[in-house]
Amino acid sequence: MADFQGIATQFVAHYYTTFDSDRKALASLYRNDSKMTFESDQLAGGGPITEKLANLPFQKVLHKYGGVDAQPTATGAIVILVTGQLVVDDSTAPLSYSQTFVLGQDATGGWYVQNDIFKLVVF
Amino acid sequence: MADFQGIATQFVAHYYTTFDSDRKALASLYRNDSKMTFESDQLAGGGPITEKLANLPFQKVLHKYGGVDAQPTATGAIVILVTGQLVVDDSTAPLSYSQTFVLGQDATGGWYVQNDIFKLVVF
Repeated sequence: MADFQGIATQFVAHYYTTFDSDRKALASLYRNDSKMTFESDQLAGGGPITEKLANLPFQKVLHKYGGVDAQPTATGAIVILVTGQLVVDDSTAPLSYSQTFVLGQDATGGWYVQNDIFKLVVF
Repeated sequence: MADFQGIATQFVAHYYTTFDSDRKALASLYRNDSKMTFESDQLAGGGPITEKLANLPFQKVLHKYGGVDAQPTATGAIVILVTGQLVVDDSTAPLSYSQTFVLGQDATGGWYVQNDIFKLVVF
């Protein structure tokens, strides 16, 4: 079995580093069969997902997250739950979020995001 | 395609109602290939998972959750992210949590929990 925890940890670090530095570059992590739910907004396919991410209404963002919990699925994918906080632009109020990813492998063995559910957590 | 959102909403309602009334009865929702990560504690198989849940150190618990975000996976499973709060015993301090489920179908078409990641969210 693949080292799912190592793959998940490496993926999550890469994902948020890319998100926080140049989020258009996240395009490489999605494919045509990718699905995203972003604050209950449902998107399908790498193009629409990348466009959604590129057009989010902030310039700067910084994600800080805690542990990365991962499991292999019954079909060899990897499911991940991340909880953390993010700060946008010059705000001083961090927003709490939770995000679930399912990573699958493409024909060349590369891992990409098949499912992505992002949710701000409001208290 | 199955009505994944309807199945997810119904499942989550059933799951927490059962959890809050008689959590030993959650046994019926897990199988031998089920995996659980509970606060980073990793469990595999319906027996160990049910035992873990039965032995959690509280008598009473009440879950309140917000919206249920669900997607079909590439292989016909359903991935769900729930965020909510729970109260144990006579505590007056709700605890925030996030939980990810992957539901798969057994040989008779019934849905069960293949993956379960539970995490308390601390701020």
